[in-house]
Amino acid sequence: MKVLGLDPGSRKLGFGCIERVGSDWRRVASGTLVLRAADPLPARLHVAHTAVTEMIRTQAPDLVVVEECFVALGPRAALVLGQVRGVLILAVQQAGIQLCEVAPRAVKLATVGNGAAAKEQVQYMMPRLLHDCPGILGPDEADALAVAWCGATRSATGVPS
Amino acid sequence: MKVLGLDPGSRKLGFGCIERVGSDWRRVASGTLVLRAADPLPARLHVAHTAVTEMIRTQAPDLVVVEECFVALGPRAALVLGQVRGVLILAVQQAGIQLCEVAPRAVKLATVGNGAAAKEQVQYMMPRLLHDCPGILGPDEADALAVAWCGATRSATGVPS
Repeated sequence: MKVLGLDPGSRKLGFGCIERVGSDWRRVASGTLVLRAADPLPARLHVAHTAVTEMIRTQAPDLVVVEECFVALGPRAALVLGQVRGVLILAVQQAGIQLCEVAPRAVKLATVGNGAAAKEQVQYMMPRLLHDCPGILGPDEADALAVAWCGATRSATGVPS
Repeated sequence: MKVLGLDPGSRKLGFGCIERVGSDWRRVASGTLVLRAADPLPARLHVAHTAVTEMIRTQAPDLVVVEECFVALGPRAALVLGQVRGVLILAVQQAGIQLCEVAPRAVKLATVGNGAAAKEQVQYMMPRLLHDCPGILGPDEADALAVAWCGATRSATGVPS
């Protein structure tokens, strides 16, 4: 069981892939893709789509989990973020892989035990929950790993112990 | 000079392709793609992306014009619409074709002569502006043709007379 988590943003795209090993989970790959602010949005969408397509091809996850967006955004920001999410969801659909969405609150609850936890608490917890994980993670990278973890706990076949 | 106009929506996608013939313009193809409400959004995004990719391949436009979204939408609607726009913009970028965006107001101004015109006025005008155009057009189809017309008038190489 392998799960890829994505934390989409219009400037930064966090990704984290985790894999089940017995009753534990280990980090397989994670990082942050920076979408250059100087590039026009169409070019950024193309980069994001290509990167996620390639990630899915190389990691071959059983499940992709995407964080639901904050709807507390303004409509213009929601529109831009929607465009990025659209191309990510398309890449998953094109690969024929199962997709699930999780709310930010559920991600924090699953990893920290508190739906209102701070970003730093998620960064602190992920290396403690996963094998093969560096002690210091960037916020988007930690969030993407947490999204993957949350999706895995929901998946019938992959509840972490 | 051939221009493809797109009027993206989460349920209906209007498209209209126009071509310059001497100093006039003619309609080449137009219609409305209905995205089934019963399908989950990822499936709808895939259908929209495939359809636009195929349209670009068969029509080979020099320019694709997309209508800018109303930011008067709520954030949740803006997010959904953004996802549809994202995959359309991606299809244009993947084909390496020039893209331009036009505001709804500019579209109405270019076709009806009034930026606050009603949708029906755009439906009335498009068959009068274009050769080979049926007298009755659906609202999304007429809007997409109007979007193409507006983009063409802005393009340095294709100002309609």
